Amino acid sequence: MNLVDQSAVTSVSVKQVDRNGIAAVEDIVAVEEPLAIRLSWPDANKIEQVVRDIAVTMRTPGHDHELALGFLFTEGILHSIDQVAQVNRPKGDDAANMIIVELTEAPVLDATQLERNFFMTSSCGICGKASLAAIRTQAKFDVRGDELLVSAETLTSLPDLLAAGQQTFAGTGSVHAAVLFSATGLCSEVYEDVGRHNAMDKLIGASLRAGRLPLWNMGLFVSGRSSFELVQKARMAGCAMLAAVGAPSSLAIELAWESDMTLLGFVREGRFNIYAGPARIV
Amino acid sequence: MNLVDQSAVTSVSVKQVDRNGIAAVEDIVAVEEPLAIRLSWPDANKIEQVVRDIAVTMRTPGHDHELALGFLFTEGILHSIDQVAQVNRPKGDDAANMIIVELTEAPVLDATQLERNFFMTSSCGICGKASLAAIRTQAKFDVRGDELLVSAETLTSLPDLLAAGQQTFAGTGSVHAAVLFSATGLCSEVYEDVGRHNAMDKLIGASLRAGRLPLWNMGLFVSGRSSFELVQKARMAGCAMLAAVGAPSSLAIELAWESDMTLLGFVREGRFNIYAGPARIV
Repeated sequence: MNLVDQSAVTSVSVKQVDRNGIAAVEDIVAVEEPLAIRLSWPDANKIEQVVRDIAVTMRTPGHDHELALGFLFTEGILHSIDQVAQVNRPKGDDAANMIIVELTEAPVLDATQLERNFFMTSSCGICGKASLAAIRTQAKFDVRGDELLVSAETLTSLPDLLAAGQQTFAGTGSVHAAVLFSATGLCSEVYEDVGRHNAMDKLIGASLRAGRLPLWNMGLFVSGRSSFELVQKARMAGCAMLAAVGAPSSLAIELAWESDMTLLGFVREGRFNIYAGPARIV
Repeated sequence: MNLVDQSAVTSVSVKQVDRNGIAAVEDIVAVEEPLAIRLSWPDANKIEQVVRDIAVTMRTPGHDHELALGFLFTEGILHSIDQVAQVNRPKGDDAANMIIVELTEAPVLDATQLERNFFMTSSCGICGKASLAAIRTQAKFDVRGDELLVSAETLTSLPDLLAAGQQTFAGTGSVHAAVLFSATGLCSEVYEDVGRHNAMDKLIGASLRAGRLPLWNMGLFVSGRSSFELVQKARMAGCAMLAAVGAPSSLAIELAWESDMTLLGFVREGRFNIYAGPARIV
């Protein structure tokens, strides 16, 4: 088994129980494994590499480099692909489940950025309003969607297009997906993961790597519900529209209005709800 | 507005688009707000309180005390309700979104336990196997389900029973739920949250508080998919059976087998799959 090229799905033996009784069958499930994200950079004398472990996330293997880059970008730790010297795996046993992002020089890190939810622990009080304000100061790009006018027809076509591109979900029924769209339909590969935040990080990391950031005048379509965290990630990428198959949370809606974004929910079965920014829907 | 007694749902104005056109309607969405969890304990001289911020989680308000207790327990930071002197909110602006768990004395904290995914950063390598091993050393209770024999009829009745108890979901279609069951049906209140890990932490925290831990010979039923994290939380509570409406991940199945637990998936529409521990299904 090649540990580095892990699969996104695996086969397991299960007992299926229904009204007709019990049957032994093979089922396909999504693989979930930890991925550690490590930063490194040359020290002041350029003699040794400084190493800092940033996070461990439970993810579905595949697009690990993109996931690491996207996570670092959407958390405000990485601002540009120009900061990255190379993206590697370590040698040895950790190769499958660790990505090392080697920077050209030391990053400017706020001490609190090393905590997973750093932007919510600001000293001005822990509430949704503080989270919204912190996002504003963290974001490298403004949000632009002046030319993003999307028709109801295009939006209601997204679920079928996404389903066609979701290779892992078809087998398992258990992974989330994220994809980019424009006024005319899908315009990126579909990224999948057991974690919806990971699927979006993979997409944004791939865009960062390809020089496609900011995501101005593009929309993000995701398979699940939209939380504060997903709107935050879209906003960090400069994206003006987030469309989701599921429902939004209250704070997702607030952040979308606050950021002049369009937020759509329940995009399925030929309909959708506009929760913020209706002017971009024609 | 009473900030401490926040609601789980809120009403928003949305535009609903379907084949018939566009309509302005009121929609109910689940509230999402950060909750900071803080530990405090008397210093060695019993003169001042030591304060340590442990985590910030995005959650749906309601059962905040239980969420804080359950989180601390399932992360292996708190081992018994006897360690807790009281559970409070701070005074002032942070009251709505912070819970302070005051301990009778200093906890024994591994330095790595202050990181969210502490158990996956063990020095022996970052892989699923290391995660499984770490859970074994963290768990306070063993798993016992010798007397837990559940019929297919009881299991297939769970979704309707859960739906009847899900007050927030009925309005929003966007929150996860967790509930306890025995061989004869549901045996606890339904706990809900925008985060599925939070719903389970609320349930386990309530059980800790009520002196119901370990959850021997009881099962946990959850509305979503089952990840490694959910099986881990059930295992920390000594629970031998986790049943989920959605699909499991690969690592969820591995941890269930490793822990002698029963793991069920796709418990819906009169059927289910047994992914681990079939002997408890009669």
